[in-house]
Amino acid sequence: MKHFPKLRYGAAYYDEYMPCERLEKDVEMMRAAGINTVRIAESTWSTLEPQPGVFDFTHIDRALCAMEKAGIDVIVGTPTYAIPAWLAARHPDVLAMTQQGRGLYGHRQNMDITHPAYRYYGERVIRKLLEHVKDAPCVIGYQLDNETKHYGTAGESVQRQFVAHLKRRFNGSLEAMNKAFGLDYWSNRIDAWEDFPDVRGSINASLTGAFARFQRELVTEFLQWQADIVNEYRREDQFITHNFDYDWRGYSFGVQPDVDHFAACAPLDFAGVDIYHPSQDHLTGAEIAFGGDMSRSLKKDNFLVLETEAQGFPQWLPYPGQLRLQAFSHLASGANGVMYWHWHSIHNSYETYWKGLLSQDFAPNPTYQEACTIGADFARLSDKLIDLKVENRVAILVSNEALTGVKAFPMGDGVAYNDVVRGVYDALYRQNIGCDFIGPESTNLADYDLLIAPALYCAEDGLLQRLKSYVADGGHLLATFKFGFSDEETKVRAALQPAGLSEVFGASYSQFTLPGGVPLEGELPGISGAKAAGWMELLTPCGAQVLASYAHPFWGSYAALTRNAYGRGAAWYLGCYLPEGEAMEAVALAAAKDAGIAPPPLHFPLIARGGRNRAGKAVRYLFNYSGLRRSLHWFGGPATELVGGKPIAPEEEISLPPWGLAILEEA
Amino acid sequence: MKHFPKLRYGAAYYDEYMPCERLEKDVEMMRAAGINTVRIAESTWSTLEPQPGVFDFTHIDRALCAMEKAGIDVIVGTPTYAIPAWLAARHPDVLAMTQQGRGLYGHRQNMDITHPAYRYYGERVIRKLLEHVKDAPCVIGYQLDNETKHYGTAGESVQRQFVAHLKRRFNGSLEAMNKAFGLDYWSNRIDAWEDFPDVRGSINASLTGAFARFQRELVTEFLQWQADIVNEYRREDQFITHNFDYDWRGYSFGVQPDVDHFAACAPLDFAGVDIYHPSQDHLTGAEIAFGGDMSRSLKKDNFLVLETEAQGFPQWLPYPGQLRLQAFSHLASGANGVMYWHWHSIHNSYETYWKGLLSQDFAPNPTYQEACTIGADFARLSDKLIDLKVENRVAILVSNEALTGVKAFPMGDGVAYNDVVRGVYDALYRQNIGCDFIGPESTNLADYDLLIAPALYCAEDGLLQRLKSYVADGGHLLATFKFGFSDEETKVRAALQPAGLSEVFGASYSQFTLPGGVPLEGELPGISGAKAAGWMELLTPCGAQVLASYAHPFWGSYAALTRNAYGRGAAWYLGCYLPEGEAMEAVALAAAKDAGIAPPPLHFPLIARGGRNRAGKAVRYLFNYSGLRRSLHWFGGPATELVGGKPIAPEEEISLPPWGLAILEEA
Amino acid sequence: MKHFPKLRYGAAYYDEYMPCERLEKDVEMMRAAGINTVRIAESTWSTLEPQPGVFDFTHIDRALCAMEKAGIDVIVGTPTYAIPAWLAARHPDVLAMTQQGRGLYGHRQNMDITHPAYRYYGERVIRKLLEHVKDAPCVIGYQLDNETKHYGTAGESVQRQFVAHLKRRFNGSLEAMNKAFGLDYWSNRIDAWEDFPDVRGSINASLTGAFARFQRELVTEFLQWQADIVNEYRREDQFITHNFDYDWRGYSFGVQPDVDHFAACAPLDFAGVDIYHPSQDHLTGAEIAFGGDMSRSLKKDNFLVLETEAQGFPQWLPYPGQLRLQAFSHLASGANGVMYWHWHSIHNSYETYWKGLLSQDFAPNPTYQEACTIGADFARLSDKLIDLKVENRVAILVSNEALTGVKAFPMGDGVAYNDVVRGVYDALYRQNIGCDFIGPESTNLADYDLLIAPALYCAEDGLLQRLKSYVADGGHLLATFKFGFSDEETKVRAALQPAGLSEVFGASYSQFTLPGGVPLEGELPGISGAKAAGWMELLTPCGAQVLASYAHPFWGSYAALTRNAYGRGAAWYLGCYLPEGEAMEAVALAAAKDAGIAPPPLHFPLIARGGRNRAGKAVRYLFNYSGLRRSLHWFGGPATELVGGKPIAPEEEISLPPWGLAILEEA
Repeated sequence: MKHFPKLRYGAAYYDEYMPCERLEKDVEMMRAAGINTVRIAESTWSTLEPQPGVFDFTHIDRALCAMEKAGIDVIVGTPTYAIPAWLAARHPDVLAMTQQGRGLYGHRQNMDITHPAYRYYGERVIRKLLEHVKDAPCVIGYQLDNETKHYGTAGESVQRQFVAHLKRRFNGSLEAMNKAFGLDYWSNRIDAWEDFPDVRGSINASLTGAFARFQRELVTEFLQWQADIVNEYRREDQFITHNFDYDWRGYSFGVQPDVDHFAACAPLDFAGVDIYHPSQDHLTGAEIAFGGDMSRSLKKDNFLVLETEAQGFPQWLPYPGQLRLQAFSHLASGANGVMYWHWHSIHNSYETYWKGLLSQDFAPNPTYQEACTIGADFARLSDKLIDLKVENRVAILVSNEALTGVKAFPMGDGVAYNDVVRGVYDALYRQNIGCDFIGPESTNLADYDLLIAPALYCAEDGLLQRLKSYVADGGHLLATFKFGFSDEETKVRAALQPAGLSEVFGASYSQFTLPGGVPLEGELPGISGAKAAGWMELLTPCGAQVLASYAHPFWGSYAALTRNAYGRGAAWYLGCYLPEGEAMEAVALAAAKDAGIAPPPLHFPLIARGGRNRAGKAVRYLFNYSGLRRSLHWFGGPATELVGGKPIAPEEEISLPPWGLAILEEA
Repeated sequence: MKHFPKLRYGAAYYDEYMPCERLEKDVEMMRAAGINTVRIAESTWSTLEPQPGVFDFTHIDRALCAMEKAGIDVIVGTPTYAIPAWLAARHPDVLAMTQQGRGLYGHRQNMDITHPAYRYYGERVIRKLLEHVKDAPCVIGYQLDNETKHYGTAGESVQRQFVAHLKRRFNGSLEAMNKAFGLDYWSNRIDAWEDFPDVRGSINASLTGAFARFQRELVTEFLQWQADIVNEYRREDQFITHNFDYDWRGYSFGVQPDVDHFAACAPLDFAGVDIYHPSQDHLTGAEIAFGGDMSRSLKKDNFLVLETEAQGFPQWLPYPGQLRLQAFSHLASGANGVMYWHWHSIHNSYETYWKGLLSQDFAPNPTYQEACTIGADFARLSDKLIDLKVENRVAILVSNEALTGVKAFPMGDGVAYNDVVRGVYDALYRQNIGCDFIGPESTNLADYDLLIAPALYCAEDGLLQRLKSYVADGGHLLATFKFGFSDEETKVRAALQPAGLSEVFGASYSQFTLPGGVPLEGELPGISGAKAAGWMELLTPCGAQVLASYAHPFWGSYAALTRNAYGRGAAWYLGCYLPEGEAMEAVALAAAKDAGIAPPPLHFPLIARGGRNRAGKAVRYLFNYSGLRRSLHWFGGPATELVGGKPIAPEEEISLPPWGLAILEEA
Repeated sequence: MKHFPKLRYGAAYYDEYMPCERLEKDVEMMRAAGINTVRIAESTWSTLEPQPGVFDFTHIDRALCAMEKAGIDVIVGTPTYAIPAWLAARHPDVLAMTQQGRGLYGHRQNMDITHPAYRYYGERVIRKLLEHVKDAPCVIGYQLDNETKHYGTAGESVQRQFVAHLKRRFNGSLEAMNKAFGLDYWSNRIDAWEDFPDVRGSINASLTGAFARFQRELVTEFLQWQADIVNEYRREDQFITHNFDYDWRGYSFGVQPDVDHFAACAPLDFAGVDIYHPSQDHLTGAEIAFGGDMSRSLKKDNFLVLETEAQGFPQWLPYPGQLRLQAFSHLASGANGVMYWHWHSIHNSYETYWKGLLSQDFAPNPTYQEACTIGADFARLSDKLIDLKVENRVAILVSNEALTGVKAFPMGDGVAYNDVVRGVYDALYRQNIGCDFIGPESTNLADYDLLIAPALYCAEDGLLQRLKSYVADGGHLLATFKFGFSDEETKVRAALQPAGLSEVFGASYSQFTLPGGVPLEGELPGISGAKAAGWMELLTPCGAQVLASYAHPFWGSYAALTRNAYGRGAAWYLGCYLPEGEAMEAVALAAAKDAGIAPPPLHFPLIARGGRNRAGKAVRYLFNYSGLRRSLHWFGGPATELVGGKPIAPEEEISLPPWGLAILEEA
């Protein structure tokens, strides 16, 4: 990342929201905390342009001037993700029509991102802003919009675009579309384009799946549109990024349903991301690692955490040590910096209890004080820790289409696509097996020794063939239930499952059921007694080794987990969801070992992550994700612990305080 | 049933939905499975008429031709229960306006069944279809529409019809209507017809009850309208039926709230029905028996199961033996055949996981293989098992009005009308006491030795008088709480409860409460300790024998269950809901014995049901509704077990495998 | 209360709703029950005016005539809280547009109370009614409307009024408004009045809080408008009242969110109120006491219970003795009478199971029979019990703004503002510490020795200064978490919390979290082991004595409860919610003792309440709120037990039956 001479440590800063004059004092406190970067302007359209065509850069200028003086760099966000009241008043249909009808003005992220009026005014304010700030030396780059999604936009204009898109996709053939989507069912055929019904009412998962993909493409197009504008202004030394976010369950949980991150990141210099996670006794580091591994995988490069929690929600107030642990955990995934949302807690409106580094009283508090130590360490260790190159032998294959398909046809016990993804991911994380993520279009399968395909419900033939070749050529594949059950149009394959690849897996099934707690039995360590939930496929081996079967009076003859040697590789198939972490860990570990992968001798809550720094040296972060002091024996070569500056010998005992960490650079 | 020379075994078949050419192979597999009947065309309007007035009978012709050749009979469904996209595009208000507003196109069963445009196009497609198929020899009959209900239709036109209907009912007297409905309350009076408010907003349970009844009458009228059309075309040897369904709780649970089955079946030659039920460990046969007893009662004749589950939902995948057990259980209620929904599982759209005999892979699977044995046995035993005449001495009196009334004024603990009905029904079923159902208009009360009236909340004076006479003339009546509390207009009687018939019951109450688990005590075996839930009436005997009272510090002086000799008969009254099956069984058994009824010496999970076959011989089905082998001593006369062909002597031990069955024909 | 020569005992009576001629018989039964007052006409607009401008006083005249003859007094309600069908038919937009859109006709309380058509017709019917009844000798007073609230009215006209109101409040300065509400956040600024967006979509809690306050002011204005009309007609000897109600959780729970009771009671001669509460095993008297203390506090005077339950909901059917206990409990708070809703149970419509004194059978029942004893005792003891003057040394400070603010920013575990208020109130009630309520505008703080301010989230500077002075001048203040966190515009203070008054409390906090069951420890009796829930502030003492702290590995250094001597008084601060009654009682008792208050030696379920009667004698009610007989030693001076007429000596044992009571008048 050419734009990162040093680790970034920062926060979002809103001069606009201040109830009193704070700028000078804030900058002073930022400097004391080692903050070297702030993000501004994002979401402040109405302050920038209080009336249509009337621009006011007061707050921008104040911020830039103060930061410039203080030597703090600035990322400027385009302000488009929350529209001003005047825009909604002038063009009410800028507010997106969604499944729930037309929204009312007030919330952010409620507009039709394709609406010409939104685009017209949005482009103008971006141009005015960029023109105004581009030459400021402290401005190091730009964030396009924020957490862009399609917001469910499905008004008439969007639906017309969708129909046009389908016409192109099916070369104008209604018959091809009717066939691909199976629209004969329940009389849903469309035999004249002008009969196309409101897709919001459709019960056809192929049609709604196609619309969901179309909506994701709108996001990709939107970010490219903004990038094209910004590119007209930005200096050579200024970057473009975007703040991606993840499936939200009150925190960053899994694959983002509404954006194709792999496609949308194309116009960016590097991926930006926000990662929010449970804290206090529920802090595990899994979300930090998941978000980091995903963000790094997007452009196979370092990335920037543009937002993460400082004090956060009341229930997230960090215990002493946790803010440090979190910050270095981000770096351990390849982040080149950590920025908080946000500097000061907001006094009015909506996110008043999503607290920044400072409370509304602006006084130093324990969280701020801990941040000061992080800022100091970031500055001191920047050269050692920046641009960490992380290389993994395992990849998880994720897919927006599969997510959408599983959502249309849910499993039992409320198990969703991202539960399966996180089940697999967390099993790796807890055993300190590093992994990347790849998408369905990925062509570098051979870079990995083990591919895991959780619940890959929708998959086109080409992908299945690539996976088959991957195994034939010596790769290891661990697929779970639902693998390739339908094609990319959410049409179930009329083929022996899984995915017509039963010779690859050496097993097949024609029936499945909901387990309701059926236990497994088998010789694989850790698998016997584990209970299946959500989904179970009744596998019959045809060549594969049965590693686990169902302990059930009527389903006992079926396999639950199989392994098959195929070509020069091996294909594992797991037929049921295993909600218990231990069982999923057993499966993942066995498959990893089969692929020749040996994780370090640690288990959660002790976490080891890392890569190679600019000097080419191995840097290993050791984290204690628990409230108790824990120790381990150093499993690497002679090293230096960077925080304390102490040498560590192989096998030397390292003791980590509650929520503590160590950073070892090997010689 | 003149149209049934043999037991029907079949499935719904959709050539329209096939992702590839399957017809020949499917017919071959059908024949192998003993399938002799398929149902086609239902729900395929858009394929039949892809554009208004453009008809395409390709799939119909293909199916008829292939079935004809294979000797498989065909039931043709009118396709009207799912409208084509072009109809919604041309006439958007064909989509019903309901309590939730106007629906969007996509789902089935969302139209205003009174809309002239729907009727116009619907009639035309029915006529074209009938014209086209009526002479095909394999076509044995027609199904009108499918699972018709009123879909909550409540748009302006429907409401105008309703107001006109009220004008007629009240002879134009607003005063009579205001009085009957109690509209003075909360200023709801209507003193000019043109002030009639949107009934969807009404909080007056008498008015909304009248509207619900009116909506049910729309269904009756709709089916008569379709029958009249079909009757113009059908051959003498072709029948008309309809596919009724039941209150849906994820499966067929109880009395259908939205259709008056007793009235709606008038134009049919026989009742058709769909019955879906829990499976695997939750398979009890109770829903099969309930649906069968209800369907048989509609026209006091044999009936046809037009739809039931094959593989069904994932959680319904049958254990080995269950599909057989289910099929013969339908026959044991008087079904003359069993047809699955559906032949093949659907590859797209919505019901992809409601699986047919075949999975989407079209390969033989254990369910299909079990179906083959059923088909063979149906063919072999058809003469013995067809046209079973079932005669019962017990009837349960059910009422749509009562259901609607209880829904308007719910009891505690979420107890609904159908919980009470099923509580009573299941108590009989588990004790092998056969029963029929009768409606409030029924005039053949005297056919039964015991009438049970569960939660008969709304009842007109005439019915109460008929019940009184029934008891006076020697009948036994078991009424439960809520009996006759209101009249047919959901107006509470200003009379001593129950129902102003306290001299019949020898007991009365003026107060009631929610029990929250109050235990009963009494000398009736099995009643002490049983806990009341949902509702409890504080009965004071005035002549009746107290069979149970409430064990409670403040309500201890009130009766919970009474019996009163009245005239030549007896009237039992149960004042509270008993959620525990054992307690309700105790009450039902005592009342049955009181009426001189002695059930066979079996208890669930061993179930005995049956009747007389064409030869006048007693046929007794014995079912083992459990996953364990069980045996019993044959309690009838010398007999032949029909499946195995073995003679069985009285008292001989019969051993039934898990989910097994035996069929005994007495000599 | 000049209008109350005797205790009122009564019921609402609806001749309009009768299914048969009952008037004479009802009056006879009323007289037998000692009923001396009925309330009529409320909610009967459509009967009074069946068509616009057509008036029919038949039912009014019948009732007045019968009551007059029987010597029963009548309160006439204006009929405006349920509109007739014709009004909705003529002016559909009289139905309020709310957050949920436009309602449908049917329900009560669904109109826009500012709508000119509603006002026009409403005024006319009130004038016609008043003209008609004002001279009837039996008419003793009027009830304005019923349970008036704003019903969420938020249509265009109301919003225009709101914008005009804001213009006035901010002297036309948008900048002042943007600043006060923090509208810069998420681009919500308003820089032209005509851009003002639909407030229903706003996510700005300051703006929505201002709108909620504006809506409450509409209620105040509405009642004043009705009072002005009624005042033109009423006789000198006739009173005006209104039937207030409380936050509804299936019963009367807490502070009414939608009405500012302190402001709205201005035009009334005395407060009327409805109080509904759990019964049977859940009857505690707390809701009766809460509603009574609140109602008495509104005008610092006696009040009238215009509605309370007779039989009530099925689950409220009173145990023997409970109806008496309830009636006298109302008197013990200062009520001058008790009226039931309602006389007879309604036969149709909606509230059929909200039962009156009589069931629908009109027969005497145990509840009615118990009412007869109450009526007799009320008549016999009227002179002793009427106009009870209750004086308390404790007051609880409640605030609609605080309630609204806490609702916008909820705490954890579902803890709402009224949970905190009731937690404090119930702790006093159970320990027999009497209290009043005061509002934020109250100027008589010095009347009390102890003020309690539960969750006073929003508070203007003036109030905080008054509380500060109160303590400085010798008062005792017990504030809880959230105290003064934001100003009156729901803007969080940029000051050291609590409320910038840390020198008063000798403690401060900058951080808070959700406890999830953190136990407390401390020397205050009863506090150790109590678990915090919902909210916890991390208090640091700066001068205060720490009475409890958090037993937690990471928060152990913070205080949970502090006491600080300030000026001549003391300020207590409780930093967390204590859901367990015992813990909250411990805090309240300690603060009360600190203020020199010593409660009587009784604890719930034995309750003592009272005051001084007209003769200036102390009257003490003793209640046994349990199903077991309990006794106590009389803790007052020589007295007479008024019900039984027996003298009671100091320390004499008094035995109370289950749900029993005694009334002692000291000599």
